[in-house]
Order: sequence, then C-alpha cells, then structure tokens
Amino acid sequence: MYKKVDNKDIEYLKKVIPNDRILVGDEISEDFYHDELSGTEHPPEVLIYVTSTEETSVIMKYAYQNNIPVTARGSGTGLVGSSVAVHGGIMLCTTMMNHILELDTENLTVTVEPGVLLMELAEFCEQNDLFYPPDPGEKSATIGGNISTNAGGMRAVKYGVTRDYVRGLTVVLPNGEILELGGKVVKNSSGYSLLNLIVGSEGTLAIITKAVLKLIPLPAKSVSLLLPFETMQAALDTVPKIITSKANPTAIEYMSKETILFAEDYLSKKFPDTKYEAYLLLTFDGNHTDWIEAEYSNVADICIKNGAVDAYFIDTDERKKSVWSARGAFLEAIKASTDEMDECDVVVPRNRIADYILFTHDLAKEFNIRIPSFGHAGDGNLHIYICRDGLEKDVWEEKLSNIFDKMYKKAEEFGGQVSGEHGIGFAKKGYLKNQLGETQMQIMQGIKAAFDPKNILNPDKICR
Amino acid sequence: MYKKVDNKDIEYLKKVIPNDRILVGDEISEDFYHDELSGTEHPPEVLIYVTSTEETSVIMKYAYQNNIPVTARGSGTGLVGSSVAVHGGIMLCTTMMNHILELDTENLTVTVEPGVLLMELAEFCEQNDLFYPPDPGEKSATIGGNISTNAGGMRAVKYGVTRDYVRGLTVVLPNGEILELGGKVVKNSSGYSLLNLIVGSEGTLAIITKAVLKLIPLPAKSVSLLLPFETMQAALDTVPKIITSKANPTAIEYMSKETILFAEDYLSKKFPDTKYEAYLLLTFDGNHTDWIEAEYSNVADICIKNGAVDAYFIDTDERKKSVWSARGAFLEAIKASTDEMDECDVVVPRNRIADYILFTHDLAKEFNIRIPSFGHAGDGNLHIYICRDGLEKDVWEEKLSNIFDKMYKKAEEFGGQVSGEHGIGFAKKGYLKNQLGETQMQIMQGIKAAFDPKNILNPDKICR
Repeated sequence: MYKKVDNKDIEYLKKVIPNDRILVGDEISEDFYHDELSGTEHPPEVLIYVTSTEETSVIMKYAYQNNIPVTARGSGTGLVGSSVAVHGGIMLCTTMMNHILELDTENLTVTVEPGVLLMELAEFCEQNDLFYPPDPGEKSATIGGNISTNAGGMRAVKYGVTRDYVRGLTVVLPNGEILELGGKVVKNSSGYSLLNLIVGSEGTLAIITKAVLKLIPLPAKSVSLLLPFETMQAALDTVPKIITSKANPTAIEYMSKETILFAEDYLSKKFPDTKYEAYLLLTFDGNHTDWIEAEYSNVADICIKNGAVDAYFIDTDERKKSVWSARGAFLEAIKASTDEMDECDVVVPRNRIADYILFTHDLAKEFNIRIPSFGHAGDGNLHIYICRDGLEKDVWEEKLSNIFDKMYKKAEEFGGQVSGEHGIGFAKKGYLKNQLGETQMQIMQGIKAAFDPKNILNPDKICR
Repeated sequence: MYKKVDNKDIEYLKKVIPNDRILVGDEISEDFYHDELSGTEHPPEVLIYVTSTEETSVIMKYAYQNNIPVTARGSGTGLVGSSVAVHGGIMLCTTMMNHILELDTENLTVTVEPGVLLMELAEFCEQNDLFYPPDPGEKSATIGGNISTNAGGMRAVKYGVTRDYVRGLTVVLPNGEILELGGKVVKNSSGYSLLNLIVGSEGTLAIITKAVLKLIPLPAKSVSLLLPFETMQAALDTVPKIITSKANPTAIEYMSKETILFAEDYLSKKFPDTKYEAYLLLTFDGNHTDWIEAEYSNVADICIKNGAVDAYFIDTDERKKSVWSARGAFLEAIKASTDEMDECDVVVPRNRIADYILFTHDLAKEFNIRIPSFGHAGDGNLHIYICRDGLEKDVWEEKLSNIFDKMYKKAEEFGGQVSGEHGIGFAKKGYLKNQLGETQMQIMQGIKAAFDPKNILNPDKICR
C-alpha cells in the first residue's frame, strides 16, 4: 500500500537536507523503533532531524507525492506508541528544533519550536519571572509531544491542561502546505477550531513546527503539604472535600506507601515519611506567604478532620526536592521493579477515584498480578501499571488483555474516559473504539481524511 | 436542492410533537426571521419548541431522511446570523429546554439544558456559593448559544472563555444519532476532541441538548476600579503594563466617553464620571478583602503612573450596578442611537488595541461615518459598530463593505482574527475565507461533511 523508501528517495532527501541529519536503515538506533513502553515496535526506514518549518514542508510534500508514510517524533517519551513508525517510512525527529523564539511580555506569550523540552521551557519562564503552568511528570518530553497528547500533569487542578495554554500553532499538513492557526490572541471564534483539533491529535493530522503558548506571572511562593492517612480510601475520600471547600490547591497527588518505597529504592533517597498506607501531596501557590498559609492551614484542618494522621509542611527547597523528585520518579521506579509492564491512564470523575483504585486492587488479587498505581487525585487521572514480573509470554499477554478489558469497561461505567493525558496512539485504539462506538470513530476518520486524504501522516493511530 | 416542508411533513411532526409546540408559516413571529442585527433574514417554514434530546433526535432523523434543512436557535441574541434559517426548513427552538439538571459539588460541575439563560445559570451558581466565570455581555443569551459561539465575555482575562468550562456535551447529529462527548472528567486525551470542535461551531455540526459545565468556588469578594484617562491611547497603553505586573485582574474593559454618554442616555442613569475622554474599568476578585486590596492598589498606582487622572473605587452595590449596567447596555445604547448598524468583533493581540481603535477613528473620518466602539481591553477583543445614521441604502452598503474590508485586513495585519466571540455565521463567511484561505476552508468543509454528509444542519454558515 505505501511505497518503500528506495535509493532514489534517499538521493532526493540528501539533496534537500544536509547529509549528517539523515540516517538510513541500520544507521538508525533501535531507540527510535519504540517509545517508553515497548509494546509497539517498528523501525523507520529513514530518520531525519529537521530544523525548520520549511524543511518539514519540503519533506512532507515529497512523501505525499510518493506515498511514503511519515511519523513525527520528539523525545520519544510517549507510552502508547504514537511516535512509532508502525509502517516504516520517514521519521521526522524534532529534537533539533529546540529554540525558544520569542518572549512577548506584553501579550504574555512565548513562541517555541516543538523540540523544546518541558524542563527547558519551565526554566526559561522562571528566569523571566513567568510561569507555564502545565506540569506533566516527564520533564524531558518535548513541548510538541505535550501538545500532541494534550498532556495534563500535576497542576491541572488549578491551572488546566496543555490545551488551555496553546494560543497559536504553525503546522505542516500532510501535503506539505503550511498553516497558521490562532496566534497571540486571547479569544477566538473564527470557524471550527482547527487548533483545538491538532491539540491531542498525536501527530496524525499535521506536524507542529511552532507554538505560541500562554504564560502567566510566576506565583512568588509555593508550598507543599504531605498528608499521611491510614487507608487509601480515607485519603481519597478527602479529595472532594478539599475541592468543595474554597481552597484552590495547585496540585493534589495521591501516592501509596508501596509506590513511595519503589521510588526510595530507585532514587536511593529517603522520603520524609513512609509509616502509613496512603499519602496526599498538595501544593499551594500565590504571591504572599500569609495568603497561601491561610489556604493550606484550612485544608490541613479539613484533612485532619477526615482522617489524616499528620500534616507535614514542605517548605524548604531540600524537602520539596525530596518529595517531588520521588513523585517524578514513580513511573521509572515501577518500571525498574519489573521486567515488563503496560499502563492504563484512565480518567474518572474525581469522586470515583477511591472506588476505581479499590477495583484495581481486586483485579490484582483476581489475576494474581502486581498492579501498582499513583494518580492525580485532584483531577481524577490515574496511572496504573500492570507488571509482568517474569510471567510466561502467553500467560502475560492473556492476563494483560483481560485486565485491560475490565479496567476500561469499569472506567466507562464510572463516567470516565480511556485516556486522561497519555493518548491513544497505537496501543489503545481498540479500547477507544469500544467506548466511543462506531459513529464517533467514523467522524474521527472523516476528520483525518479532511487533513490527510492519502493517510500518510502517522497512519494507523487513534482511529485507523 | 432541499425539500420544502409540505403537509405530509407537518402531519408527521404533529404526530410526534404536541401541537401547541409547533408553529407553521404565518403563525411564526417575525422575530424568528433574524437575530439581533438584521443583516441576515429568512423565515423558517416550521418552528418547533423542543423539550428533550429524544425529541430533537426524532425530528433530526426525519429531516435527514427527507432532506429538510434544520436550524437550532436559542434566544436569538446572536449578531452574525448563525441562528437564522437561511434556507427555510425547520427551526428548533431550545428555550423550553431551560432546566438545570444537576449540581455536583464533589466534581464541581453543573449539568444544564441548552436553553438555560446565562443570567439564570449565574444566579443558580451564586446561590450555591459557586461560580461560572464566563461573562458575556448579553445575559439573556442561552448557554447553548454561548457554547455554539465560544462566547468570551468580560472575565476572559483571568478565567478564560466558554470553551474552558465545557466538560461534557450531549449532542444530536444531523442524522438523529445521539452522542455523548467528554463528561465530568477534568482531563481527556481520548482521540480527536469532538467536544472542542462542537464548541464554537455555531450549530452547524450537531445540536447541543445537554452540557456539563465546570464551576469554581465563588470568590467571596469582588471590587471594581474605574480609571479615567485624558486619551484613549494613554488608557490602552496602560493595559500591557497591568498585564506584565503580577496583578491578576478579572476584567479590564475599555470605554470611551462617547459610548458612556450613549449608555447614560439609553438607561437614563448617571455614570460616576464622564469628564474624560477614555476609561478603564477593572475588576478584581478573591476571598479576602486585604488580598484584593493589595492587588488593586498596586494596579491603581501603575495606572496613575501611566496617566490615569484619578482612580474611583467601586465597592458599594449601587455604584457597581451603575457602572456595570452601563457597560452591559453599550450594544443596545449604540443600537438605539442609529437607524441601522453592523458590527465587527475582531480580536487582536492586546498590545495592538490602541493602534486598532485609532485606525477605526481614521476610518470614521475617511468614510465620514460614525464608528463607536468598546472593548475587552484585557483580551484584545473589540466590539466596533458602524452606524448607518440615515444614509441611502446603496451608499450605506458600499461604505459598509469597504470599511469591513479594511477592518478585517488590518486585524489580520496585526496578528488578529475575524471574530473574538460573536462567531462567523452567515455574515462574516467572506472575511473568514479571506483570512484563513482556501486550504483551511476546505478542511472545515471536510469536517462539516464528516458530521453532516447531507449538509442539512444549519447550512450555508461558517464555511459553505
């Protein structure tokens, strides 16, 4: 169906792109065959490090004319195979497009190339006394990748998700045409929001080559509260009570003792407390210490009234680092605890989180398998890991498939969705279709066809 | 092309819908031929007051099978003809679907029918100590209409626009199928965001029959500041300085003396001050008086340093009412000052507003016509009115067309967009196409076809 890349194609590509940025066949590291979870695996035929919108356009035009599939990729930190070239073809790597192009302090926007890393963007903003609120756990992800999955992160409770901070995009269409969507404007009601379609489309509709992001002033202070509870249920039942109060926490993270111990092990670093079964980690930010203090003491009271055993105030840089570096290491720490794992990233209404985690505990018992998890308790988004722990391949695959079936069914039952922030990619297509049904999938395919009539851009993801 | 509604159709409709909710031909008030601005005008053949998702579905299914165009309509407060049945057919009026269905305090959502008025929703939330932040000027608009145009309103500076508060939608497709999009979840990365496509699609892709909206806790206090300036330029040049400071105002509205005088006249009510050429009206909200006070005194200082002649503190209910009722009456007041008018709702980066208004003043001189305006200075969205003032029809139409051409061209030059919040509808299609170009329009048509292959739902709007 697709054309295989041949010598004539390579010859053309080497004419338009400097040769040190083109790798062919065996020259391509196996790292580019898969993403952070190895479930989806396939080598690209050519890997090109692009450096501009124009280059991307020239390559896309050629690929379109010659029916060669193209997959864009940032840091490859995805978990569902979105950036894996499942049909081979050309992989466009955006990591050299890593420049922060403009800071506009009057309109509070920053214009970036897609390969800028989240941690680079965070640092740049902070140096300029500004703040890019989205805070996904994986700081070495590119901003292009974050936009492509509509990553949410830990501050979604107060500040929303990546979508809420994308003001403008420059994108290259599958046929090579360049489009400008949105801009530095705060409001926009000018036709169907193609911009909001691209956000979360996992590189299937167009390639993002520039983004205008909304910033806010950097809150002057930020403090965290760590609250131990005797049980997971007690911890999570407190969350809706925090939400219903007038407090406005930046983050509400849930962590179990088990997950914290993995992280201690992985980082060889002590967590402030590991005596209890369950913990909530909250952050508050603002411009005045006493304002924030009023907020968190109120919330600490609510928590203690609802079963928190203590309330640790995390204000020194060192303590903050110890707690949040543990939180940041959960995925890697769980990964290091087993030979293989796969994940479920469902989102449920936040008052159903406790029930959902209890359900996964029951599944772990039923299938006699380890299912550690942690989650954004404030926004209902859970990250749940099913660990292989040396199981035979066929046993593992069957268990995994049965567990996933039950998990996604239960999430739907609870009014949840298949993915809170990691996306659908290749791995979760079946579950998306099960939940949304034929009609929604057909509409999505119609949208895909409107952007990509030849289906050459990241084919076989989300809805095909 | 479309089937005209005949007796057989009426017979069918009267079988499935109680007859007192169906009006045919001359029974339909002329109010339903147009919206708030009369530029687009056409009678529907049948007007049906729907009361449920299921009824809407039954009617759509019939219309689809019989190729009858359908236009959904709320309060009819739009300004670009989105809710005008330009091809006749069936008009579905949602004003009887005006129930607030559920308040979920644990997930901070409210579930509403589309015909709930913005003012009803605001009042309901306030009674429950909660807050629906979007605040478009027209309080008698329906929430369905607000979602359909992605209305922005005055609090977009701090709180964002309608899109940011839509968590879930129930919609009826052109073929009558019912879809659930999103839900009570805070995050969602589950395929292309059909929900975000429906928001702002002006009733062309599907009919909204239920919406789950995000709420936040009601800020305990809110105060306004009125700042007079000698010139418009001085007032508007201050806005980016307020934004760059760490202040977080809820609203920053710009108003000229001229517009205020219209409102005084229209309301027969005095505004606190009309001595100066230009005014900024700011609001601050929060939970503690002293926190807000710190914010607004800082901003008052910035304004006075930048040319504000005074700073009126608006805290009593009476003063607040006088100022904000004037602001709320601007559109009606300008309308009352002339025989006919048309509007331009461009949005530009907020540091270009002063330049843009100066440009409209130049246009007024060049064309010897009155062009009053007011605007959401904090978010770059302007509402500009071109007044006919008794001009001959052909002179008026030519001037209007020339002025619009120049206005939309200038907005594009400034990095702006055709509509900040009123939408494209029927009236602004040409300007949208001019700015976005053939390719974006074709993609939009492809999206339209994916939802509505027979093009029967609100045809000839936005992109056809």
